[in-house]
Amino acid sequence: MDSERDLTRIQPGDIVLLSGHDRREFLVVMQPGAQFQTHRGYINHDAIIGSLWGSVVKTHLDYAYMLLPPSLEQLIRGVQRTTQIVYPKDIGYLIMKMNLGPGSRVVEAGTGSGGLTLALARMVRPEGHIYTYESRLEMLEVARRNVTRLGLEPYVTFTQRDIAAGFDQHDADAVFLDVREPWDYLPQVHAALKGGGFFGALVPTTNQVTELLEGLAHNAFGFVQVDELLLRSYKAVAARLRPMDRMVAHTGYLIFARALLLEEPEAP
Amino acid sequence: MDSERDLTRIQPGDIVLLSGHDRREFLVVMQPGAQFQTHRGYINHDAIIGSLWGSVVKTHLDYAYMLLPPSLEQLIRGVQRTTQIVYPKDIGYLIMKMNLGPGSRVVEAGTGSGGLTLALARMVRPEGHIYTYESRLEMLEVARRNVTRLGLEPYVTFTQRDIAAGFDQHDADAVFLDVREPWDYLPQVHAALKGGGFFGALVPTTNQVTELLEGLAHNAFGFVQVDELLLRSYKAVAARLRPMDRMVAHTGYLIFARALLLEEPEAP
Amino acid sequence: MDSERDLTRIQPGDIVLLSGHDRREFLVVMQPGAQFQTHRGYINHDAIIGSLWGSVVKTHLDYAYMLLPPSLEQLIRGVQRTTQIVYPKDIGYLIMKMNLGPGSRVVEAGTGSGGLTLALARMVRPEGHIYTYESRLEMLEVARRNVTRLGLEPYVTFTQRDIAAGFDQHDADAVFLDVREPWDYLPQVHAALKGGGFFGALVPTTNQVTELLEGLAHNAFGFVQVDELLLRSYKAVAARLRPMDRMVAHTGYLIFARALLLEEPEAP
Amino acid sequence: MDSERDLTRIQPGDIVLLSGHDRREFLVVMQPGAQFQTHRGYINHDAIIGSLWGSVVKTHLDYAYMLLPPSLEQLIRGVQRTTQIVYPKDIGYLIMKMNLGPGSRVVEAGTGSGGLTLALARMVRPEGHIYTYESRLEMLEVARRNVTRLGLEPYVTFTQRDIAAGFDQHDADAVFLDVREPWDYLPQVHAALKGGGFFGALVPTTNQVTELLEGLAHNAFGFVQVDELLLRSYKAVAARLRPMDRMVAHTGYLIFARALLLEEPEAP
Repeated sequence: MDSERDLTRIQPGDIVLLSGHDRREFLVVMQPGAQFQTHRGYINHDAIIGSLWGSVVKTHLDYAYMLLPPSLEQLIRGVQRTTQIVYPKDIGYLIMKMNLGPGSRVVEAGTGSGGLTLALARMVRPEGHIYTYESRLEMLEVARRNVTRLGLEPYVTFTQRDIAAGFDQHDADAVFLDVREPWDYLPQVHAALKGGGFFGALVPTTNQVTELLEGLAHNAFGFVQVDELLLRSYKAVAARLRPMDRMVAHTGYLIFARALLLEEPEAP
Repeated sequence: MDSERDLTRIQPGDIVLLSGHDRREFLVVMQPGAQFQTHRGYINHDAIIGSLWGSVVKTHLDYAYMLLPPSLEQLIRGVQRTTQIVYPKDIGYLIMKMNLGPGSRVVEAGTGSGGLTLALARMVRPEGHIYTYESRLEMLEVARRNVTRLGLEPYVTFTQRDIAAGFDQHDADAVFLDVREPWDYLPQVHAALKGGGFFGALVPTTNQVTELLEGLAHNAFGFVQVDELLLRSYKAVAARLRPMDRMVAHTGYLIFARALLLEEPEAP
Repeated sequence: MDSERDLTRIQPGDIVLLSGHDRREFLVVMQPGAQFQTHRGYINHDAIIGSLWGSVVKTHLDYAYMLLPPSLEQLIRGVQRTTQIVYPKDIGYLIMKMNLGPGSRVVEAGTGSGGLTLALARMVRPEGHIYTYESRLEMLEVARRNVTRLGLEPYVTFTQRDIAAGFDQHDADAVFLDVREPWDYLPQVHAALKGGGFFGALVPTTNQVTELLEGLAHNAFGFVQVDELLLRSYKAVAARLRPMDRMVAHTGYLIFARALLLEEPEAP
Repeated sequence: MDSERDLTRIQPGDIVLLSGHDRREFLVVMQPGAQFQTHRGYINHDAIIGSLWGSVVKTHLDYAYMLLPPSLEQLIRGVQRTTQIVYPKDIGYLIMKMNLGPGSRVVEAGTGSGGLTLALARMVRPEGHIYTYESRLEMLEVARRNVTRLGLEPYVTFTQRDIAAGFDQHDADAVFLDVREPWDYLPQVHAALKGGGFFGALVPTTNQVTELLEGLAHNAFGFVQVDELLLRSYKAVAARLRPMDRMVAHTGYLIFARALLLEEPEAP
């Protein structure tokens, strides 16, 4: 791991978060010869490559940007979005519940803007893979651009399809559905999963949870769980520590289950 | 990615969750020739290897276990614990906030029972590494056993040390402290991180948050955030959907920050 | 208001909370000549009457009890209960939402153990009144004993009835239902309320909320709201302030609405 | 209770909430001969008095308003406010915890805009009384106007004073402080309370909670509790039931305690 490469300095191909004093942030993939343009002036990538992580560069108009490694949250926030994005709190949790990590083979639908696709691709590389399905071509192209921009396209297969027609995989470790009526596709999900494989879904309403629970019971899924996560952030002031005044009260209900082998109907 | 290997069947080296109808669960790493013993009878690993994931095996006393891939939550729950374990909801979130994934180099203290160590090791492998520090030798040995049992020891370096003496790393992507007085070690943390690197900590009381915030402000950290996550689980019954009666109300406050380069004192 | 009566001393008829060092608490209504018996010995009421509120009395076995005015929470906790009790957090909130206070005329069903009945009776006296309905006679008798024990029976009318048969009131300020299928009784509720009167209900499941919302829409109710309250308690330790480890995660969903006059169908 | 008075019709002196289709609401106290003016036209009070509660009146410009009894929440929302208002969820809870109701004698500081004063005055009337203290004269006058407008001034005594100088009461049932540094006034609070009397306070930061807990321990208070209440509201749509997207994440920490008699130092 500790190669001769200097890990404290920015390399070509690195994704850099440029953070200005005006709190505006930009994600840039370092390419020798390229130029970063902003309303505050431009900076040549070559002036950034080789710099220390955490250092400051200035535009030709003398405006300063700090050079930071982005968090996954910042990567997702930087996505060009045309749909609701899955929140980092929910992504982190589903990664734990579905045991996603290096080497996992994951099926996802719908792709949407690709925020979750991107997060999962980073988690499963280099040996794992994300197979993502989306019926709307224009959405799929947005997602593909978002994923490609961060250099993650080798780890993602994009398929335009109504998933009623089924998935091409049959031994996936996990399937995650972020669609309006996930209960309509449970036989297809089951066929895509290996035995005991992880199913996950995110739905906003209690009515959808109820419909999905009924569907899971009739489609050989077991070990069903329903969770929601509330994120409460604090004002980070030592002498006046207190929660923020307002918070996001709801992103969605997370439902998890396991695909049971069909010859084992007595499972819990 | 899709090698000729049959991904739907259990292979030597796989970690299998054996789940009984009595809701007792066991984590077993498959080793040809080995035997799994339980109060319900024994099973030879060779009778499991080659089975379909999700299928059921029986002990010589005819007690049935379903063979499941474990979730990360189940892996952590299986840890021999002598200390409070970091909860999966918090691990998932800190992975997102600190951008941990394949290839990350992470410093952790204290090791405790190694539950977080294990989760992080699975996330950063094969190219990344966890450097974990613990002052109590007996704890370190517990953690080492937990990590080794799951075959993750190649990705972890265990060091017995009072971290007041500092860390051996100087270009870590992230440092996470799960110690009682994290504010005492902030210079050491700063020295271990690359510029802009991620700092995280978990503390249970508001007084500790206040002390840590004061420490961060005096030790060249910026972009400070304080969060907590509440997990609310539901009874997964379609016709009577409702939250569980009781929940864990508090695991800890999560504090995140970035190491600023010292020559840049004016950062936010 | 400031009569010649010494408000700092306990009077006949006062309800006293006797609080022991073993954290056991007893509610006793002061009656000259009566005796309070406990496993720690007995005390004559006459030894308590005339004492300062907050002072300490001892049993004949020399065990000490502090003499406190009870909170409404403690009054409710002291109820002989054979059913789930409405929690104080929910009672306080429904009092605000339904504008209950001195003089209010409130219809309640079902009575259950009378915990809510008792709390409401204290709030509306001396001019207001609670009309409470319960189909199970044995429950009604439990509730009557609980209410009578605290001297609140002048403010409560108990009726044994299946409320499908309707209520006797027609100009109530508010109706509160704590029954399993409140949507079955909405015409009866509407008939009991004055125009614009307050309807409230408590149900534990999301499915019940959905059914009730549908019922309200078809029975001339408007201004519908659905709320839930989460109570998070802290360990009251100055140097280690933190939430309790566990909390009640769910008591129920509170639904509020207003009875619309039937000739005004276009109301919101 | 059931006088010959028709409770279903609006009487002189009643407080009426006029609710328009534009969701604008007005609180008006009915006075024969008076006129209610709005940008949608005017209505004579005499056209309202005698109407059914829940019915609709129209302005001379033919704009319709529904005539509703206000909830306590709506009464408070109608207050002319120059300061942060205590939220109904917190008022309801403190009423339960401090056992406030008809006949209670309550000391309050600071008065602020009088929102809490008003709510408490309605709860304790006709026999109880609120003694409210405020150092800023202009605030006190705002509060007095708000209380007088609803006809509650007979139940409230307003005093302009820095409460460091102490309160005039010595046998209050309860004292509630909504001031920045409540720990500075604990001896004064203790002197105002009868033995075992209820103390309550609302503070926004954890640092204040810590300081107050230290103060309570040094000033003969016992039975200390720290709570917070989270209100989560739902979209009241039967087919798509779900929490609102955003919520108020924090209003304040509620601290409750009892005044111990000074000669009883061994109390819990």
